[in-house]
Amino acid sequence: MEKHKIEVCYSPALFPYYENRDAVVVVNDILRASSAIVTAFMNGVERIIPVGTLEEAKAYKEKGFMVAAERDGIVRDFADFGNSPYNFSSERVKGKQIVYSTTNGTNAINLASSGSEVLIGAYLNISALAKHIKQAGKDLLILCAGWKNKFNLEDTLFAGALSKLVLEDDQFYTICDATLGAMDLYEAAQGDMMAYIEKVAQRHRLKKNNLDDVIGYCHESDLTELIPVLNGDHLISLQNNK
Amino acid sequence: MEKHKIEVCYSPALFPYYENRDAVVVVNDILRASSAIVTAFMNGVERIIPVGTLEEAKAYKEKGFMVAAERDGIVRDFADFGNSPYNFSSERVKGKQIVYSTTNGTNAINLASSGSEVLIGAYLNISALAKHIKQAGKDLLILCAGWKNKFNLEDTLFAGALSKLVLEDDQFYTICDATLGAMDLYEAAQGDMMAYIEKVAQRHRLKKNNLDDVIGYCHESDLTELIPVLNGDHLISLQNNK
Repeated sequence: MEKHKIEVCYSPALFPYYENRDAVVVVNDILRASSAIVTAFMNGVERIIPVGTLEEAKAYKEKGFMVAAERDGIVRDFADFGNSPYNFSSERVKGKQIVYSTTNGTNAINLASSGSEVLIGAYLNISALAKHIKQAGKDLLILCAGWKNKFNLEDTLFAGALSKLVLEDDQFYTICDATLGAMDLYEAAQGDMMAYIEKVAQRHRLKKNNLDDVIGYCHESDLTELIPVLNGDHLISLQNNK
Repeated sequence: MEKHKIEVCYSPALFPYYENRDAVVVVNDILRASSAIVTAFMNGVERIIPVGTLEEAKAYKEKGFMVAAERDGIVRDFADFGNSPYNFSSERVKGKQIVYSTTNGTNAINLASSGSEVLIGAYLNISALAKHIKQAGKDLLILCAGWKNKFNLEDTLFAGALSKLVLEDDQFYTICDATLGAMDLYEAAQGDMMAYIEKVAQRHRLKKNNLDDVIGYCHESDLTELIPVLNGDHLISLQNNK
């Protein structure tokens, strides 16, 4: 049986050293972009156009698009709304296309586009993701959006959780230290994830701006089976694509 | 009391995002460059000139210098010897200056040179290092040499061990996720470090070339109080410098 490797990349700045055109790439930015994107699809968004720069987001806004844009957690003044999953309500997003630009997550998505398939991962869809990856039967590369190219814990824990699920299938293996480290950190945290998340830097950043109300929600597992997938320059639901 | 922060950088490629000119920078490459450098000073080397490229190492060799050089663990043909700490014996190195080039470690040392003081760290000198850092009373940045810019576990565990020792002094704090992660991984590993190290990628690489005889030695603590420090383009012993 052909074996498929799992690797985890802790920062967009390290992506060139992990890049694998044959791999399914899962981008995650648990607090909050990837959790928000999955939520948007749960609430019926038609497509999301991730853009790296605020200039691009602004140009889309001027063309009449609905735009979600934040930097450092704060909604930008030209945008319709920001980065909280709660912003992507059914009333706002159902049947719409939305342009989205965040500090870390959307840039990571565009970077990952060299992969054979680019998926958006969050706890919200983690079991569906693992199932799809096992069926795809390809290498898996998990790209953590991190924080301004620095390592962050919440994305690493998710990478560990997803790696463990996928490794249950023995067509997969890992000899990647970052994957092993992520799984060990997830094991240390999983007994009381919310207590562990208390210490992460992003929780402090969100709390300072009263944006930490979403932390519990962003760590809930399996609220949906929908998987956002990159299709050219925009994200659609994998299920709608079949 | 002025507080000093601790940060850990998991890869030379991430250094620009962590760079801190006010910090003491500790470079570590546990398997094997930083352990070999500390050993060389234990055995009386006068100075070590770390060079990033093999071309530079070769040029020094042609000028008559003694040269240690390896890539991917293998001694280069023009070099006098390679990267094993056991190569840096008293007979070979006492009173000498040695040019040194390795896959990851020597490049990391040169990268770190923007710090206020650049030290070479290994388990072999960890307590002396922690003591010196506490006395210096500056920020601490631990730079892991990693493996070809990828994250590696053995350097991360060392970063966790050193961070824990330094944090015992309450003039230090950390809000750096990479530091928190390194400490948690060290805690998971420290009960049986050799069993943990069994799984790291570098152990497999060394074993394949029969170079894994040094792994136990490279994880022995406090064999020396000597601390190699960067002085211009070369390393000397901090103690001899005073």
